[in-house]
Amino acid sequence: MTNLGIKYITFITLFLLVLGACKPTDEKDGKGQTKPNIILFLVDDMGWQDTSVPFWDKETNYNRIYHTPGMERLASEGMRFTQAYATSVCSPTRVSLMTGMNAARHRVTNWTLKRNVSVDGKSELMDYPDWNINGLQACNSIEHSVHAKLLPQILKENGYYTIHCGKAHFGAMDTPAENPINCGFDVNIAGHAAGGLASYLGELNFGNKSKGEHTKPWGVPGLEHYHGDSIFLTEALTIEAKKAIDNALVNKQPFYLYMAHYAIHIPLNADKRFYQKYIEMGLPESEAKYASMIEAMDKSLFDLMEYVEEKQLSDNTIILFMSDNGGFSLRPRAGELHTHNKPLNSGKGSAYEGGIRVPMLVKWPGVTKENSSSEEFLIIEDFFSSILEMAGIEKYKTTQVVDGVSFVPILKGESNTGNERALYWHFPNNWGPTGPGIGATSAIRKGDWKLIYYYSDQSFELYNLKKDIGEENNLADEGSEKVRELAINLGKYLRSVKAQRPSYKSTGELIPWPDDLIN
Amino acid sequence: MTNLGIKYITFITLFLLVLGACKPTDEKDGKGQTKPNIILFLVDDMGWQDTSVPFWDKETNYNRIYHTPGMERLASEGMRFTQAYATSVCSPTRVSLMTGMNAARHRVTNWTLKRNVSVDGKSELMDYPDWNINGLQACNSIEHSVHAKLLPQILKENGYYTIHCGKAHFGAMDTPAENPINCGFDVNIAGHAAGGLASYLGELNFGNKSKGEHTKPWGVPGLEHYHGDSIFLTEALTIEAKKAIDNALVNKQPFYLYMAHYAIHIPLNADKRFYQKYIEMGLPESEAKYASMIEAMDKSLFDLMEYVEEKQLSDNTIILFMSDNGGFSLRPRAGELHTHNKPLNSGKGSAYEGGIRVPMLVKWPGVTKENSSSEEFLIIEDFFSSILEMAGIEKYKTTQVVDGVSFVPILKGESNTGNERALYWHFPNNWGPTGPGIGATSAIRKGDWKLIYYYSDQSFELYNLKKDIGEENNLADEGSEKVRELAINLGKYLRSVKAQRPSYKSTGELIPWPDDLIN
Repeated sequence: MTNLGIKYITFITLFLLVLGACKPTDEKDGKGQTKPNIILFLVDDMGWQDTSVPFWDKETNYNRIYHTPGMERLASEGMRFTQAYATSVCSPTRVSLMTGMNAARHRVTNWTLKRNVSVDGKSELMDYPDWNINGLQACNSIEHSVHAKLLPQILKENGYYTIHCGKAHFGAMDTPAENPINCGFDVNIAGHAAGGLASYLGELNFGNKSKGEHTKPWGVPGLEHYHGDSIFLTEALTIEAKKAIDNALVNKQPFYLYMAHYAIHIPLNADKRFYQKYIEMGLPESEAKYASMIEAMDKSLFDLMEYVEEKQLSDNTIILFMSDNGGFSLRPRAGELHTHNKPLNSGKGSAYEGGIRVPMLVKWPGVTKENSSSEEFLIIEDFFSSILEMAGIEKYKTTQVVDGVSFVPILKGESNTGNERALYWHFPNNWGPTGPGIGATSAIRKGDWKLIYYYSDQSFELYNLKKDIGEENNLADEGSEKVRELAINLGKYLRSVKAQRPSYKSTGELIPWPDDLIN
Repeated sequence: MTNLGIKYITFITLFLLVLGACKPTDEKDGKGQTKPNIILFLVDDMGWQDTSVPFWDKETNYNRIYHTPGMERLASEGMRFTQAYATSVCSPTRVSLMTGMNAARHRVTNWTLKRNVSVDGKSELMDYPDWNINGLQACNSIEHSVHAKLLPQILKENGYYTIHCGKAHFGAMDTPAENPINCGFDVNIAGHAAGGLASYLGELNFGNKSKGEHTKPWGVPGLEHYHGDSIFLTEALTIEAKKAIDNALVNKQPFYLYMAHYAIHIPLNADKRFYQKYIEMGLPESEAKYASMIEAMDKSLFDLMEYVEEKQLSDNTIILFMSDNGGFSLRPRAGELHTHNKPLNSGKGSAYEGGIRVPMLVKWPGVTKENSSSEEFLIIEDFFSSILEMAGIEKYKTTQVVDGVSFVPILKGESNTGNERALYWHFPNNWGPTGPGIGATSAIRKGDWKLIYYYSDQSFELYNLKKDIGEENNLADEGSEKVRELAINLGKYLRSVKAQRPSYKSTGELIPWPDDLIN
C-alpha cells in the first residue's frame, strides 16, 4: 500500500468517526437507529412473590410454586429491584406512570370507571374528598380529571411508534381518555375505560355477550377475530403486540410498547396450557388457576423477548417489567386472607408492603449488568422521567409538575442514595373491602422506616422494614421521635402538593393532616 | 269591601308585579322557570322543497307530493324563513352550528369520518388543503381539528339539560368529539362519529350486524333495546327524546333538545306507516321511500309538539326547524339527476341554491307572529348566537371568533337589513360526485346577487337570484362590475379568516383567490 493509500484510509476513517459522532439522535432508520425500542411490561395485580424470581433475600414457598422462566431470563440478563413500589390500587399507579405525578398531586386516588361517578364505598364516619373520578386526560375540557402531558404523547412527538396493548384504564367511560388513541398512542389493542374484565377465555368472547360484540364495561374490546376461539386473552394480546411491532419496523420507527396485561386481575380463569400442572402439585382449584394465569403472563414476556431477538432488535430494546399494585389477597383466593404476599403483610388495597411493593426488572443492553440487583427505592411515577431519559428525550414541556425521579443512574450503577429519599403514598378513599392496612391512609417511607397514618382514628403505625418486613411490630409508641419526624415530613409534603383529605361526617370538618397531631 | 281592603289588594298586585319583573332569569324551577326550553329540530339532507310547506312564492309539485302536517302546523304557529342557508355538506354545517364559525374559518370544510383520514376525492388538477379532517373538539389536544367552546357546553354551564338525539357527526372516530358527551351534552341518544347509517329498520338492528351490537361505522349505536323490533329509526329516536325531556322535568331544568335526525339521509328505506300511500300516488319505488322518510320525520316533529303541549310546556318552548344542506339529487333518486330541488338548481354538495338553501321554521311563543314569513338572509352559524340569545345567556367566553349573527331581531320583527349583509360559502375540497355547482368553490351572496368562484378553472358565475332562482343565466360576462365588487368582497373575507385553498398539482402553487383575478 502506498503512503497515499494509507493517508486515504486514515482520512476515510476519520471522516466516518466524525460522521458517527454527528449521527443525529433522532435518526429513525430501522437498522442504524439510535433511539432504543422500549417495552414496558406491566402486569395487573401481581404480587411481590407471584414469581419464581426471588425478590426477597430468601426464597419463599411462593417462589417455589410459581413458574416464571421468562422473568428468570429477564432477571439473569438485567437488573432486579427489590424495593420497587407502586400505589395500592390500579388507577393511581397508571396515572402516575402516564404523568410522572404522585397520586397525592394528581388526585386520581381511587379507581375509575364511569364518568362523574365515584366508586368510593360509604362510611358512617367520613366523607371522602372530591377526587378526580374521571381519571387522566390529555384534553383540558373534562371535569374531575387531571389534565396532563402524557408519556406516550411525548414519545410520539419524538418519533416513537406508540403501542398500547391490553388494559388501559386511563379515563372514565364517556371521556376522551377512555380511548388510548386520545392519550398519545398510535395503536390501541384491547384497551378501554375498564380496569377489569369478565373473562380471559376466547371461548367466552373475552367476556363479551356474543361474538363480535363489545359488552361494556367488562367485555374486552377490539379482539373480535378471536371470539369463539380456544385462546387465552394473554396469548391473544401477545400475538397482537408482535403484529404492532412489525408495523413499527415497516414504518422504520423506534417503538414504545406498553404491554399492559389484564392478567393477573380476577376473575380466576384456568389457562389450560398450564393449569393441570398446578393441580397435580396439589394446589386448590383457585390457586392452580391463579398460577396458570401467572405462567401465561410470563410466557408472554418470554415470547416477546424471543420475538425481539428473532427480529435482531435485542441489542437496542429496553425491557421494563413492573406490576401496578400488590397481589390480590381476598376471596376467591384460597387459604387465609391477606397472606398471599408473605412475607409481606396484606395485599392489594393496603398501605402495607403487600399492597405496594411489587416485582420489577429492567434490561437495558449495554447499560444494566447481567443478573444484577438493586435495593434502591423507587416508585411508579419515576417511570415517566426514566423512560423519557432512556429515549434520549431531554427537552419536553409538561403542563403538570413532575414528581418522579429518573432511575437511569441506578441502572447505570451511578447512584447510591442510601435510600434517604422519602417516598409518599396517599389514599384518602374507600376501596371497599376491609383488611390490614386497607382504608383511608397516607404513608411515608424513608430509610428503613415507614409511617402509616390512618384518617379514621388519626392513629400512626411505625415500622422498621429492615428488621420487620412483615410490618408486625408497630413501634409508634416507642419511636415517638421518628413518628414526629416522619409525620412532619409527610404532612408538609401533602400540603405542598395540595392533597385532598376526608372530612368528618358529623361536623363536616376536614380530618387533620398527620403533622397537625404533632406538638 | 273597605278602603283598606282595596288598598291592600292594590299593594299586593303591585308587589306581585314588581316580583314578576324581578324574577331571576336563571330560575330553574320547573313551573316558574323563565329560561325557555329550546328544541332544535335538524333534519339531514332535506331539500327546500321536501315538504308540503311552500318556501318559494309559488307552490311546487314537490309541495303537493310530500305530506308534512307537522311542519304545516309549526309554520302556522311561527315564522317561515324563505332564504335560510346551510353549507352544502353535513360536517361544515354541524361545526358552524356548534361553534358559530363560518366554514372558511373553522376549516372543517368537508365531511369527517376516520381520525387523520381525509375523505377528499382525488383530482388530476388540484391538491386539496390540509383541512380539519378530525372535526370539532371541545378538547385542545387533538390534531387537525377546530378547538372551540361549543353551543351545548355554554347552555349546560348556564343550567340547561342538554340532550343530543340522533346524528352527531361532530368529530372523527377515535377522537373525543365522536362522543356527544364530550361536546357538552348531558345525554347522548344514538350519536357517534358517523354521518350516515346502514339502515333505518329496527328489524335490521338499525344497520348493526346482530342484535345488541354496534357495528362501526354505519350501525346506529345505543338503541339496542329496539333491535329486532319492527320500528323505524325516526320513531325510536322520538320516543327516546321524549324520555329525555321527562328527565329534564324531573331535574327541574330547562332543556335544550338537539333533535338531529339521521333522516332523510340515504339509504332510502320505506317507512311502512306511510310508504303505500306514495306508491298509490304513482311515485317510483325510490321516491315513495323518500316521501315516507320525510313523513316519518315530520311525524316526529308533530309528536314532539304534542308532547310539549301535553306537558304544558308549549308556552315556554322554542322550536327551531332546520336542514343541514340541500336535498340529495343523485342516484338512487329516480328521475333526472340534479332536479330534485326544483326550482333550485342541483342539490347536496353544490354551491348552487339546491345545495345550500334549506327549509327553516321558528316558533317562539310570545315572540314570533303566527303564520309569518321572512325573506331575510341567514346562515347556519347564526344559530349559535341566536340560541344563546334565546336562552338569555349574555355573558359567555369562547376561544373561537364567532361569525354568526343572532336572528332574534328578525324573530321579533325588529330587523330589516334589506339583505345587504354578505353571506359566504367556502368548499376547497372534493366531495366525490360530480354535477352542476359541485366542486371546489367559494361563493358570496349579497342583496339579490350571488357570485360563485371555481378553483378548477378560476371562472366566475354571477346570478341575480331575484330574477333567476334556478341559476340558469350566468351574468358574469355582462356584469363585470358586480363580479369585481363581489370577488373583492369574497377574497377579502377569505383572507381575513385565513381560509385554505387548493393548489395546482403541476406546480404546487396555491390557486389564486377570487380577487387575485381582478385588476
